[in-house]
Amino acid sequence: MTMTKKVAVIGIGNFGAHLAVTLAKQGAEVLAIDSSMDRLEDIKDKVTYTVRLDSTEEKALRDQGLTELDAVIVAIGDDFEATLLTIVALQNIGVKRIIARATTKTHERILRHLGIEEVISPAVEAAERLADSLMYRGVIDSLELSSDYSIVEVSAPEAFIGKSLGELQLRENFDVNLITIKRVEQEPRLLGLRSRTVEKILGIPTPDMVVQRGDVLVLFATKPAISRMCNSSLE
Amino acid sequence: MTMTKKVAVIGIGNFGAHLAVTLAKQGAEVLAIDSSMDRLEDIKDKVTYTVRLDSTEEKALRDQGLTELDAVIVAIGDDFEATLLTIVALQNIGVKRIIARATTKTHERILRHLGIEEVISPAVEAAERLADSLMYRGVIDSLELSSDYSIVEVSAPEAFIGKSLGELQLRENFDVNLITIKRVEQEPRLLGLRSRTVEKILGIPTPDMVVQRGDVLVLFATKPAISRMCNSSLE
Repeated sequence: MTMTKKVAVIGIGNFGAHLAVTLAKQGAEVLAIDSSMDRLEDIKDKVTYTVRLDSTEEKALRDQGLTELDAVIVAIGDDFEATLLTIVALQNIGVKRIIARATTKTHERILRHLGIEEVISPAVEAAERLADSLMYRGVIDSLELSSDYSIVEVSAPEAFIGKSLGELQLRENFDVNLITIKRVEQEPRLLGLRSRTVEKILGIPTPDMVVQRGDVLVLFATKPAISRMCNSSLE
Repeated sequence: MTMTKKVAVIGIGNFGAHLAVTLAKQGAEVLAIDSSMDRLEDIKDKVTYTVRLDSTEEKALRDQGLTELDAVIVAIGDDFEATLLTIVALQNIGVKRIIARATTKTHERILRHLGIEEVISPAVEAAERLADSLMYRGVIDSLELSSDYSIVEVSAPEAFIGKSLGELQLRENFDVNLITIKRVEQEPRLLGLRSRTVEKILGIPTPDMVVQRGDVLVLFATKPAISRMCNSSLE
């Protein structure tokens, strides 16, 4: 038995709205706060409560029972002054866990100076992931584990197709660890309609698995190792 | 030898600016395009070229040699009409690879209907990752592989501390696969200064590795399995 999570999301822009609705869908009790009635109107049927107020006013926030919640997320983003004033108000009230959104690296640093340990920067993070996927051929998505190691999804290099994992010996040859393979399959539909694309995760790799065209390899390795593998032609 | 990547970024807001600068730092040749001189001014020393023009005008785009580039990223985001007009103009010109930013799920669907296969939604993706980390205790970061499987970083549950991987048998007991362990260590400094925090990736797990307080487990598993593991007390 897990207790119901209770959270507030302040600032119902694109990010805040999606966050509030996703949390509510996953079973959390969600209080959505914004200064605009219009924005609240759009999500009011999808979250637990909506409250229209100016979050930079400590007095207005005090009555909302925010200290009882598991977390308050300041998702304002664009108006950095409002973000700062809201955070200070939440700190004065004694909110347990404050998570804040930053739009730039500089804002992130300032928020950390304010004592906010959980800062998220959607634009910065997405830009870095996209840059990686553009620079390293075949990289689809990635999770940075440290400055050295990443987990990445890469399209199977042409030279790997038709070969088994036993033959490829990825760890020995490229110093990369294969976590799993993602296979895209066309599932035929009844009634002769257009086939449907289905993604399957193959599970723990075995030496007899054969790489197919369109496969996505999920790897754990250093970036240079991944880059070497992607650019190899197995000569 | 890899050839220099050549890309254009259209729309130099927070996301576009960070993307353009990151790509340039990684060695790409970057053309930054925006209708505002101010925004271009901020990054002009950090990218290869900047051009001020209205990207919704096909004629203005035609002279920029965009068909010679590896990719053109439409990072406008907020002004969806401008995004659409820009994409149609790029398609008319015959640009090879167009990557577009969407701010909502609906925009994403419309862009896909336009034939854009590479759509990124920083706000949507960040909201989903944050929702996961709030709902599943201990989850720090995650990479969704499919609707079922994820790769997640979780704080080592209290009950695991001091136990070896051989004892824990994570795959047998929880149906999760440990990719690696991230260990945060305090590195003492010379001269008696404050110690420095260093993150280390332990590499491929071996049965004799012992989980320490503060360790982060990097796992490949289904969400329910991860949730079960995080909430277990190993009774």
